[in-house]
Amino acid sequence: MIRHTITFFLLLLLLSASPTDASQEDQLMRFIESTAKKRQADRITALPGQPPRVNFDQYAGYVTVNEEYGRELFYYFVEAPYEAATKPLILWLSGGPGCSSLGYGAMMELGPFRVNPDGKTLRRNKHAWNNLANVIFLESPTGVGFSYASNNSDNINKRGDQRTAEDTFVFLLNWLERFPEYKGRDFYIAGESYGGHYVPQLATVITFMSELHRTTFINLHGIFVGNPILDNYKNSEGNLEFLWSHGLISDEIWAGIRANCTFTPKDDGRWCSVLGQASHISGIYPRNIYDPRICLPSAREGYMAGYDPCMEYYVEAYLNTGEVQEALHARTNTNWLACPRTSGDLDSTCSITSTRYSVKDLNLPVTTPWRAWYTPDFEVGGYVQQYEGGFTFASVRGAGHLVPSYQPERALVLLYSFLKGRLPPG
Amino acid sequence: MIRHTITFFLLLLLLSASPTDASQEDQLMRFIESTAKKRQADRITALPGQPPRVNFDQYAGYVTVNEEYGRELFYYFVEAPYEAATKPLILWLSGGPGCSSLGYGAMMELGPFRVNPDGKTLRRNKHAWNNLANVIFLESPTGVGFSYASNNSDNINKRGDQRTAEDTFVFLLNWLERFPEYKGRDFYIAGESYGGHYVPQLATVITFMSELHRTTFINLHGIFVGNPILDNYKNSEGNLEFLWSHGLISDEIWAGIRANCTFTPKDDGRWCSVLGQASHISGIYPRNIYDPRICLPSAREGYMAGYDPCMEYYVEAYLNTGEVQEALHARTNTNWLACPRTSGDLDSTCSITSTRYSVKDLNLPVTTPWRAWYTPDFEVGGYVQQYEGGFTFASVRGAGHLVPSYQPERALVLLYSFLKGRLPPG
Repeated sequence: MIRHTITFFLLLLLLSASPTDASQEDQLMRFIESTAKKRQADRITALPGQPPRVNFDQYAGYVTVNEEYGRELFYYFVEAPYEAATKPLILWLSGGPGCSSLGYGAMMELGPFRVNPDGKTLRRNKHAWNNLANVIFLESPTGVGFSYASNNSDNINKRGDQRTAEDTFVFLLNWLERFPEYKGRDFYIAGESYGGHYVPQLATVITFMSELHRTTFINLHGIFVGNPILDNYKNSEGNLEFLWSHGLISDEIWAGIRANCTFTPKDDGRWCSVLGQASHISGIYPRNIYDPRICLPSAREGYMAGYDPCMEYYVEAYLNTGEVQEALHARTNTNWLACPRTSGDLDSTCSITSTRYSVKDLNLPVTTPWRAWYTPDFEVGGYVQQYEGGFTFASVRGAGHLVPSYQPERALVLLYSFLKGRLPPG
Repeated sequence: MIRHTITFFLLLLLLSASPTDASQEDQLMRFIESTAKKRQADRITALPGQPPRVNFDQYAGYVTVNEEYGRELFYYFVEAPYEAATKPLILWLSGGPGCSSLGYGAMMELGPFRVNPDGKTLRRNKHAWNNLANVIFLESPTGVGFSYASNNSDNINKRGDQRTAEDTFVFLLNWLERFPEYKGRDFYIAGESYGGHYVPQLATVITFMSELHRTTFINLHGIFVGNPILDNYKNSEGNLEFLWSHGLISDEIWAGIRANCTFTPKDDGRWCSVLGQASHISGIYPRNIYDPRICLPSAREGYMAGYDPCMEYYVEAYLNTGEVQEALHARTNTNWLACPRTSGDLDSTCSITSTRYSVKDLNLPVTTPWRAWYTPDFEVGGYVQQYEGGFTFASVRGAGHLVPSYQPERALVLLYSFLKGRLPPG
């Protein structure tokens, strides 16, 4: 999965930073001073409109991952309010590809704040993940959110998952220089949707580099992906079955799909993909089929208490405010977008049926059979099954694609168990 | 389905009421006077705790359906606030068997009021069906809610769907004597759950009697059933598939079901019924798998805006108040129960998958293919497909078993189209 040329290149970079003589020691001191300064520069005094009594530190800014093309990745980092020094470090990667971890992960799902409907003020999210960990939200790859490449010849078409993983690895090494107290800290990668590609690919780069250099660059303890896209064909097969079993397509269309689709490259896309069936399910928000469609004023009440289907608009308004971009140390006058909206939204939806087909495809022996797991108020939070090697599949009951948006408490319970290395409470 | 002996018995009753001479004319006059008195006696002055400005008439009381055994059926009738005289008449039958149409249909779903958490006061339901029609809620058969048999030898074990249908037919004939302006009015039967048996069976009795006597006793225009139980085996098959596709049972159990169950009487109930799988889904409220389980105080907030999973408790408190039983002209000191709670709740759940399998079993040609239908605010309300002969299958998006509880507006839109003899808006 990882090309050796790139690995070698990274290796050279790393070796060049190891001190061997006095001049290199000076160089290292200057480097440490400059990273300490950068860290101080990244510190957020306060986000515009944030609620009173914010009791944790926030940082945001850019980390250069490629000097030649000026590739700059933007991060937003929130520490835990209590005992941050002993809590683990999580890197969050939203999906898309092309969706912002700041806009989705931080502002709509698991970050410390939610944006109010005024698009100007923030309120606390009481189920924020920084209650349990220190969380980096990374906008990746360049072109997403505030991340950019200053050299235009670093064309958007040159992007690919492999380069994304390598850039993210470089980001982490550089970020740890800026925040050295996190070196060696228990580290986890979490994400969702297309993060089903980003997360395991980054884990592979980290593991590969560690084995190659016999050095623990990053103390990776586990990965955690929500509603991931894993395999395109299993995803199509599962999503189409999901559409039928949830009453969205007719018996006749479903019979046609079963008769005509093999879920291999031989298939006819008009028939055998969710996108091919899109005309039949227009008016349905693909990320949660029970959601009001995005975004009518009437939809803000009457659906799920505490959930506002219009929040993407508040987040876009907030992050496109000059004052906010300044407070975040982002390039000002950026036209910030949560996600490209051109197409593919429907196609990117990952149903539970799809995930089950992909898990089944791994053909792992079951070690802990399927059982319900519970939230502290004795509600069924979902179901869980564990496989050989510790691989765990857990569902979250009543959640749409962005799990911590719809079920913030249930997502936090799952994270808690994950970080403890246990199955969620039975 | 209807035994001739019973039909003949009904026929005799009817013939004995037809006037042929002067003494019979007197008898008829006395009958009319007595029914007018009964109607006046049934009029509800005001329900305790009802909100101000109630602008429609309400009636409640008993109609004798069998004098020998003293079988008395309790009804609650609400007229439309405007143009009641030209609006159709609907009979609502909740399911169970054994659940109350007053408690469920009227007080939790489509009636004019909802009971407040205090168990003492009422508020308006703005999507009440009496906006469009005059609605009778019938507690049926005897033993359900306030309905009773005064002669104990009319044992509960003698009940059966056929007698229920016949008693309901007699109820309607007698009720129409008490409310003669509704004779000949467009009449519809609606219901849910086990109403999937009650509603078509009553329609069969009405049609059969009309054909036999060449008289339109009741001007039946159509039937309307929500989440009906139709066929036990199709219901089991569909429900088990629904449990799997909605992430409630494991792949392993589902594979076992598919390998071992034929959905015929040969099956092993431990494996091949939802009840047999109940241990795997304990903690899930079977009537809406996304509901909080019934009923924890913490569940009253945070789920679906406007829906309170504890409302059954408020209704029971309200209907067990002496003052309320008096206002309703029910036998006071009745220990009123919404439903028997002994068992079978899970088994009675009717998933969309089950209904589809039963509809498919009818093997009717499709005349209007599957399409979305919309609410006035342009949300997808669900999907609809029509078959030869006008048989229509419509789904309601995001609803649990008691559709008008979870989605009162969508249920009302569907009713509106049904009464107009149209498909819901596309």
